[in-house]
Amino acid sequence: MELLFLGTGSGVPSKMRNVTSIALKLLAERGTVWLFDCGEATQHQILHTSLKPRKIEKIFITHLHGDHIFGLPGLLGSRSFQGGVDRLTVYGPEGIKEYIETSLRLSGTHLNYPLHIEEFTSGIIFEDECWQVKVLPLQHGMPSYGFRVTEKDQPGPLLVDKLKEIGIEPGPIYQQLKNGESVEYEGKILDGKDFVGPAIKGRIVTILGDTVPCQTAIELSQNANIVVHEATFSADAEEMARNYFHSTTKQAALVASEANAGKLCMTHFSARFQFEDLPELTKEAEQYFPDVVAAYDFLEIEVLRQ
Amino acid sequence: MELLFLGTGSGVPSKMRNVTSIALKLLAERGTVWLFDCGEATQHQILHTSLKPRKIEKIFITHLHGDHIFGLPGLLGSRSFQGGVDRLTVYGPEGIKEYIETSLRLSGTHLNYPLHIEEFTSGIIFEDECWQVKVLPLQHGMPSYGFRVTEKDQPGPLLVDKLKEIGIEPGPIYQQLKNGESVEYEGKILDGKDFVGPAIKGRIVTILGDTVPCQTAIELSQNANIVVHEATFSADAEEMARNYFHSTTKQAALVASEANAGKLCMTHFSARFQFEDLPELTKEAEQYFPDVVAAYDFLEIEVLRQ
Repeated sequence: MELLFLGTGSGVPSKMRNVTSIALKLLAERGTVWLFDCGEATQHQILHTSLKPRKIEKIFITHLHGDHIFGLPGLLGSRSFQGGVDRLTVYGPEGIKEYIETSLRLSGTHLNYPLHIEEFTSGIIFEDECWQVKVLPLQHGMPSYGFRVTEKDQPGPLLVDKLKEIGIEPGPIYQQLKNGESVEYEGKILDGKDFVGPAIKGRIVTILGDTVPCQTAIELSQNANIVVHEATFSADAEEMARNYFHSTTKQAALVASEANAGKLCMTHFSARFQFEDLPELTKEAEQYFPDVVAAYDFLEIEVLRQ
Repeated sequence: MELLFLGTGSGVPSKMRNVTSIALKLLAERGTVWLFDCGEATQHQILHTSLKPRKIEKIFITHLHGDHIFGLPGLLGSRSFQGGVDRLTVYGPEGIKEYIETSLRLSGTHLNYPLHIEEFTSGIIFEDECWQVKVLPLQHGMPSYGFRVTEKDQPGPLLVDKLKEIGIEPGPIYQQLKNGESVEYEGKILDGKDFVGPAIKGRIVTILGDTVPCQTAIELSQNANIVVHEATFSADAEEMARNYFHSTTKQAALVASEANAGKLCMTHFSARFQFEDLPELTKEAEQYFPDVVAAYDFLEIEVLRQ
């Protein structure tokens, strides 16, 4: 489970940073990749990585500003052109369906895979046995959202050595105990709980769209292993940040701190900042939160268990 | 007057070639740039040139396939973001208006300049004192068009030396003679025609959209100084070219030859071709037409007078 930053700029592309897109690589866990936002030329950025567009299973859109969606029609078309046949679901705010369908229809783009488009407002938008994705609204110049991706806890391992110690050999009883059942064995009652190690704690990744600092950002980030928060501006530009409905480095750090997050990844930097400004921006945030990374294009971060 | 190829691939971008866009630089002649097609990431390509988006005065769209239009909304937005305030006109086939307006509306993109969108079918779509742009339909899997850009002939220079030789000094009479008028001077009738050099012949650039070879392609290319014709496939792949409504190198060369054009620029190459294949593709075309260039991204060609 890794986060791969495909675009970390804001508004318009520059030579250093493309506009926003982040890949959550779930290749080991799920065999797929989830994409968060898809600014123009996201498919071009992917050409410089090992990502395969056909592996992209879900695309989550935080909001409809052009620097977060103008790469969608091209990526959807290329995924088909390059042999993608598996179902793909796009989750986005109201309007995403009209944008995609109009673009594909007028451009005569035919997809060789089933495309589903789900418009959300808030709440749990995806859940299966292993994963849950929850969305809440943030505060921006247009409806903008954040995603909390939760990997569910996995049952602990069966303590095989302990079973063997008391003379119980492998057989159907192992599965029953692993399931936590109570089992009679040679006249004794064995409790599954005594033979299963502690549950493996799932990880939580929170990816927030453009926003001023707000309560829902903190709620989505609560105890997350990694929080991706925009930091368009430096700490001293709070007024400008507010005027443009964006956040500063300091504000991003305070959200991570209040949410008791594990790590903060700042992204969506204004084009005024160059590569050599990143240490200073990081230092600004570190005054309020200890574990900070300033993202750049093609940065990959493993999501570690706490 | 130069042609700058911003994207010379077909269908999907590759590391070597972006999808289609061509800039016609009219900086010396008109102080502006005209763009032909605008595939995704055209604005990214422009970052690596000296072009200024605010100088783009007109954008002509050959057809609505995604690899020719998906860069439009982003470029239009960035042109505004980067300070462009002058009017911009987009000319394109039916549907271009809905595509642009839907993309800008849903993404909340505000433009600080007047944008005009003109949908055409065929005929003269722009004309002023110096320029004319004519459009005709080609043959492709969807409505696709070609553009013939004509620089009008300019009047020849006033032959000042000849006037001075017969004792006529500079004055209002010079302008009258330059305008071709007849003027009485010291009892003699002077004919402007006798004191003006030959007209300066305007240049013609023909830029064709995706197409199979066709009669209108030849008509648009008649005596053009430069013809830009797609050559998606090599000479031996005529059947495949026909199946996909595209052309081969040989077919492009035959169009240029029948039209008596000055130079052929082949572009829109299939991703199967690498840089090292260009000499061979050029040689294929040169069997049927003498002056051939196989375009690559960032190639710039001056449009010479014949």
